[in-house]
Amino acid sequence: MENADLMFWRSIAVKMTEQVEKAVSPLIGKKEAGDIIKMGADGTPSKLIDIVAEDEVISVLEGTSRPVKLISEEIGELEIGTENSDFSDEFDVSSENSPESTSAKKIIFVVDPLDGTSNAIKNIPIFGISIAIAEYSPGKELPCLNDVKMGFVKNFATGDFYEGIRGQGAFLNGEKMISSPQTELNHSSMGAFIYGTKFSKIDNLSKQIRRIRILGSVAIELSYVAHGSYDAFLDLRGNLRIVDIAASKLIVEESGGVVTNQFGKALSGILNVKDRTSIIAAGNKELHEKIMTHMEVI
Amino acid sequence: MENADLMFWRSIAVKMTEQVEKAVSPLIGKKEAGDIIKMGADGTPSKLIDIVAEDEVISVLEGTSRPVKLISEEIGELEIGTENSDFSDEFDVSSENSPESTSAKKIIFVVDPLDGTSNAIKNIPIFGISIAIAEYSPGKELPCLNDVKMGFVKNFATGDFYEGIRGQGAFLNGEKMISSPQTELNHSSMGAFIYGTKFSKIDNLSKQIRRIRILGSVAIELSYVAHGSYDAFLDLRGNLRIVDIAASKLIVEESGGVVTNQFGKALSGILNVKDRTSIIAAGNKELHEKIMTHMEVI
Repeated sequence: MENADLMFWRSIAVKMTEQVEKAVSPLIGKKEAGDIIKMGADGTPSKLIDIVAEDEVISVLEGTSRPVKLISEEIGELEIGTENSDFSDEFDVSSENSPESTSAKKIIFVVDPLDGTSNAIKNIPIFGISIAIAEYSPGKELPCLNDVKMGFVKNFATGDFYEGIRGQGAFLNGEKMISSPQTELNHSSMGAFIYGTKFSKIDNLSKQIRRIRILGSVAIELSYVAHGSYDAFLDLRGNLRIVDIAASKLIVEESGGVVTNQFGKALSGILNVKDRTSIIAAGNKELHEKIMTHMEVI
Repeated sequence: MENADLMFWRSIAVKMTEQVEKAVSPLIGKKEAGDIIKMGADGTPSKLIDIVAEDEVISVLEGTSRPVKLISEEIGELEIGTENSDFSDEFDVSSENSPESTSAKKIIFVVDPLDGTSNAIKNIPIFGISIAIAEYSPGKELPCLNDVKMGFVKNFATGDFYEGIRGQGAFLNGEKMISSPQTELNHSSMGAFIYGTKFSKIDNLSKQIRRIRILGSVAIELSYVAHGSYDAFLDLRGNLRIVDIAASKLIVEESGGVVTNQFGKALSGILNVKDRTSIIAAGNKELHEKIMTHMEVI
């Protein structure tokens, strides 16, 4: 992605975090925020606060005047700006002006408008937005996690803004982040999403590790790995959506951390709302290997 | 406790939360905040940020001009104002003016100056102070949890201030709190401090419950039970200090919730830094009973 495009889409992502935060703010800690409105595209029930957040995401993208595809939890997939001739014209004009530009490539926003919904409803201060921006050439393979060029996660409760730009590093509130160099399990703090599976899966690991947390927002907890607030994070439920991790996986990798599935393999996730995965992330390769070794994979 | 005394000591507690918050604020998210300074009275290492917080607690109590006993994590027990004749005189004068006052009774502050220390060091937004104020008559039995008249918990990261006044209810930021009426496990959110013991202890329970969190601050997580952010909370490690729960136990009970040890018995904790317990708290008696039934106590 060219630098001008990078800056343009980054500004849209920043605007999106601000607009969504403003839209959901009156619902934080409110019971009605959890009212079930309809079924989401991923087959799970959509709550009022999720719909409010996603409507704002769509509204921001509709305002960009450039064609873009949105992949999001509730709506599934949505093409924005492509059937509107004004937008298409503008797009073509822009490409004429710079023949080497990315006009042949498509921009995809992979957004979880509100990660940690149940925390938001209960006013537990771990919830926010996750935005990944991918660029790919239509016609070749399906767009996947490797096509993500930028990732953004904001914790609305604290204002902390995490970002990763492919090849340029990871940042917290503009300051460069380096993942944890901690390699000893007995000095490590780890986030672990394990309920729903048997806790015994990490029984062996939990005896070795210093500290375990379950905060309830994968996007924010993976960002904690990038920042070193966590030394590691794992989600063994196997039903983690690609939408949830598209941004934070890049943020971890750009901070120097390692992200795989529970078998230690690279995530090959296609960008859609249906694919599911497990995840093991660590601040460094050595700690990641120790986690793999100590885990009882059943 | 008479109302004037209640209001006086409450104002000291509020001042304490403000002063400690101000003192620790420059250390939040800083690595040096975790430097080990010495061993605490409870036998665990004292970190810089804990010492800074406790020094501020002592300073506030020294400024009250009334005799008071402090029980706190690092320092153990400390009599304040009793050997200073000015303070003792003032105390006696006050008792002369109101013969029915509580002058024969002793005031004890049971304080955890910073609960969730490791979160504070990593800037995970779940950390704050816990203050219990007990009144008891010297000479009879040792002061215990039942002597606690007021409890205060503040999450410094969010500013949320929880309090319980015996016989008068529980409050979040001045608004009355009622604990959760949820009685179904499969609709319940539960905090669970379980690492260090075998996770299999709650394996059966975790299959039934809707949602599990481990946030890393018992005082704040018990306050969540009072507020209904959690439907229940349990700590089965068996090494929970009375100091950690002296305030929040009262807050839960004043909200309508139930607090016992892991065997369903009332906590009979003596107010000191050495006694340890387990805890099971729930928003209501029915949910508490279901948790007891489903828990595999090994």
